[in-house]
Amino acid sequence: MNKLLNRVAQANTLLCVGLDPTGSDEDVTRRLPQVIAETAPYAAAFKPNLAFFLSRGNGTQLLRQVVAAVPEGIPVILDGKFGDIANTAMHYAQFAYDVVGADAVTVNPYMGADAVLPFSRPGKFIFALAKTSNQSAVQDAVLQSGESVSDFTAKMLADLDAAHHSIGLVAGATDVAALGRLRQLCPNQWFLVPGIGAQGGDLTAVLAAGLFADGTGLLINASRSIWQAEDAGAAARELMNEINEHRPVTA
Amino acid sequence: MNKLLNRVAQANTLLCVGLDPTGSDEDVTRRLPQVIAETAPYAAAFKPNLAFFLSRGNGTQLLRQVVAAVPEGIPVILDGKFGDIANTAMHYAQFAYDVVGADAVTVNPYMGADAVLPFSRPGKFIFALAKTSNQSAVQDAVLQSGESVSDFTAKMLADLDAAHHSIGLVAGATDVAALGRLRQLCPNQWFLVPGIGAQGGDLTAVLAAGLFADGTGLLINASRSIWQAEDAGAAARELMNEINEHRPVTA
Repeated sequence: MNKLLNRVAQANTLLCVGLDPTGSDEDVTRRLPQVIAETAPYAAAFKPNLAFFLSRGNGTQLLRQVVAAVPEGIPVILDGKFGDIANTAMHYAQFAYDVVGADAVTVNPYMGADAVLPFSRPGKFIFALAKTSNQSAVQDAVLQSGESVSDFTAKMLADLDAAHHSIGLVAGATDVAALGRLRQLCPNQWFLVPGIGAQGGDLTAVLAAGLFADGTGLLINASRSIWQAEDAGAAARELMNEINEHRPVTA
Repeated sequence: MNKLLNRVAQANTLLCVGLDPTGSDEDVTRRLPQVIAETAPYAAAFKPNLAFFLSRGNGTQLLRQVVAAVPEGIPVILDGKFGDIANTAMHYAQFAYDVVGADAVTVNPYMGADAVLPFSRPGKFIFALAKTSNQSAVQDAVLQSGESVSDFTAKMLADLDAAHHSIGLVAGATDVAALGRLRQLCPNQWFLVPGIGAQGGDLTAVLAAGLFADGTGLLINASRSIWQAEDAGAAARELMNEINEHRPVTA
């Protein structure tokens, strides 16, 4: 967490550069370090998505190369949406933190606190799915209390964070009203926000609904719009600037 | 699905042999093919858990070795509890089916139908988490309709199966009442049942609550109790026999 806070403060950015590499092996091997180098000045964090690495066959090796290529001081979030419990979840944590060398993970809380807490470790950070950027019958179902499953999950995550720290939420940009409710339920937790760019979320509205008073608290992710840009560095810089126009920046 | 049905009919078994390899690399490399060979005569399916492979660093390679070691005709379920959507889920499907060579996967439906359907493919099978073997605030939360989130999820999975076929459920053995409700909601779908053995589920009650009228419809998983047995083959045979005592067997 300190690593993320330091990075956000030093580089004045809330941009999370998502790495969902597509293309031939040769292409990806060439382009991954290039995109990382070009976008690093504007990145608060990098977020490689596990699926895009595993599907290539040499996923673990390629993920290690990503972590090695990211400059010191910029956290790496392994987006695995890990969703298992207890001893099994410990093995995923070992994979993410020890084998790959990531600083943070994403997890799926359908199996409850048992699926979140095994990823808690000093110096590491967890983003748990609350409201994702797609329509989902399960997350949007309404409980007897009148709240949605995603709001219920957010409350659970607020309690877990109060007791264990370093637990943030994944909150999609495509439903700003839901994101605003999550901010009320979880006023002090960082949100990782997918759905800007290719998926069409409204950046200005998301920032208004989700930022802390100090202008931080959100990591705005962009994957495809950066990876597919002819000039990845320029795409990252533009998005960073667009984000910074709508928040108090201290530097 | 046909592969599973054929195997169940031919070998007269509902036992799913879970492979959660622990121990030194040397130990695992030696013991994995040995456990597979010894338990194969009693196995309706094998279920390697992705976490235990990834945490070793050479996960993909080891998973391929598992698939290669499993005798022709016995399906392999890759237990990844994959929980992502759309294009990303397609990459997990590619990993499971094309890279590893599995016949089936487990998926986490928190993100809704979008997280399930990308794994649908001719000749392949999906087991989606409904009610897992742990206590989980999220799955057990009660909706306005009076049903639990896991029951709601099960209904969604029944609808998906009616339209797309080859979608089963994961239903933990540790809550037999919940498993019985799931069977009412999903009378025609196969259940993969963890929680027997080390986790203490009641086998007789589970079979009474979950079997189809023809004595099939459940895959009873055991992992640790087989892996840690001195004689893995004997442990598998005993559990298979114990299951068969409580169901109509045709051969």
